[in-house]
Amino acid sequence: MKIPTPILKLIESFERLPGIGPKTAQRLTFYLLHFPEEELQKFADSLVNLKKGTKLCEVCHNVSENNMCSVCSDSSREKNVILVVSNPLDAFAIEKTGFKGVYHVLHGIIDPLNNIGPEELFVRELKDRVLAMSDEHVEVILATNTSMEGEATAMYISKMLRESGLGEDILKISRIARGLPVGGDIEYADDITLSRALDGRSQF
Amino acid sequence: MKIPTPILKLIESFERLPGIGPKTAQRLTFYLLHFPEEELQKFADSLVNLKKGTKLCEVCHNVSENNMCSVCSDSSREKNVILVVSNPLDAFAIEKTGFKGVYHVLHGIIDPLNNIGPEELFVRELKDRVLAMSDEHVEVILATNTSMEGEATAMYISKMLRESGLGEDILKISRIARGLPVGGDIEYADDITLSRALDGRSQF
Repeated sequence: MKIPTPILKLIESFERLPGIGPKTAQRLTFYLLHFPEEELQKFADSLVNLKKGTKLCEVCHNVSENNMCSVCSDSSREKNVILVVSNPLDAFAIEKTGFKGVYHVLHGIIDPLNNIGPEELFVRELKDRVLAMSDEHVEVILATNTSMEGEATAMYISKMLRESGLGEDILKISRIARGLPVGGDIEYADDITLSRALDGRSQF
Repeated sequence: MKIPTPILKLIESFERLPGIGPKTAQRLTFYLLHFPEEELQKFADSLVNLKKGTKLCEVCHNVSENNMCSVCSDSSREKNVILVVSNPLDAFAIEKTGFKGVYHVLHGIIDPLNNIGPEELFVRELKDRVLAMSDEHVEVILATNTSMEGEATAMYISKMLRESGLGEDILKISRIARGLPVGGDIEYADDITLSRALDGRSQF
């Protein structure tokens, strides 16, 4: 039995997505066979419009519909508190905490094993951005993941900014706290998390 | 922060798929942001072509590129052994066992709780198909799932075919065996499966 080519092609497209294996791709494709044609057209349109309808904010490089995103064009946000994240989803997650500063989206993480260096990310743009506002007090919060690559990226950016000539009186660089997640059990926490939690202890 | 509309729309499209929740839909959408535009276009094209490029075989109602599918138009298949499945994926799964007969795809299962009756499925077409070949010996193998709905559908079809006036000498109706899956543990099998396995025991 030959599976019809249009079905095979859609299965292949789904298989290229992360976390979707051959079985799931099949299931999704056959599920879509029961969709009305106009729904499939809508799905297809939203795929095509994904990149056509979005650009990167020219200030923070987050995804946006306009040249400047809604955060960067909001005059009530604290422009001298710049939170650095590796991707837009991280910015959306932090936005939910009520953070009032602005963002800088790197669009990736330094990962030498996968040939991703600082040149592939919006790292240089961060330096330019910080230098352009050097007459104010600036805080750069490094909120990359707490994985090995995330720590390395944070370290690289911190070093780069320090070497740009801005003193500690003007430029403050911080890193999000690493410790036990809220509701976490000390008993089950790993060694590194626990030692980070101790190092980062605060007055009580 | 406002998530750009083109992104929201694609997230919504993904969320309509089975087994894809809001978080996964977000992750897939942001992953696709890094795809080149021509890849997105290809994905979109395969969605649109899914229904435009396929039809249902006029004999067995399986998905096919032509009016008659590759199985029904293959003269080496045993046309008088008709295996009834509820959807195309089941037919593809059974095809891998080397089954040499033909299929009949119902495109669903009788499920009164969800308002799906025999009229919504290709049940009547099965009866017509069997009656049209009544001069031969015919075997109908009911291979719907062994769930409650699958059993009910098998029962309904069996009754309908029996009442169509074909005697047991012409029309043989069978049901796939229900028992322990190969490699299964008797200790962990449920009561119903075990009693089905006993009922269906074969000479050794």
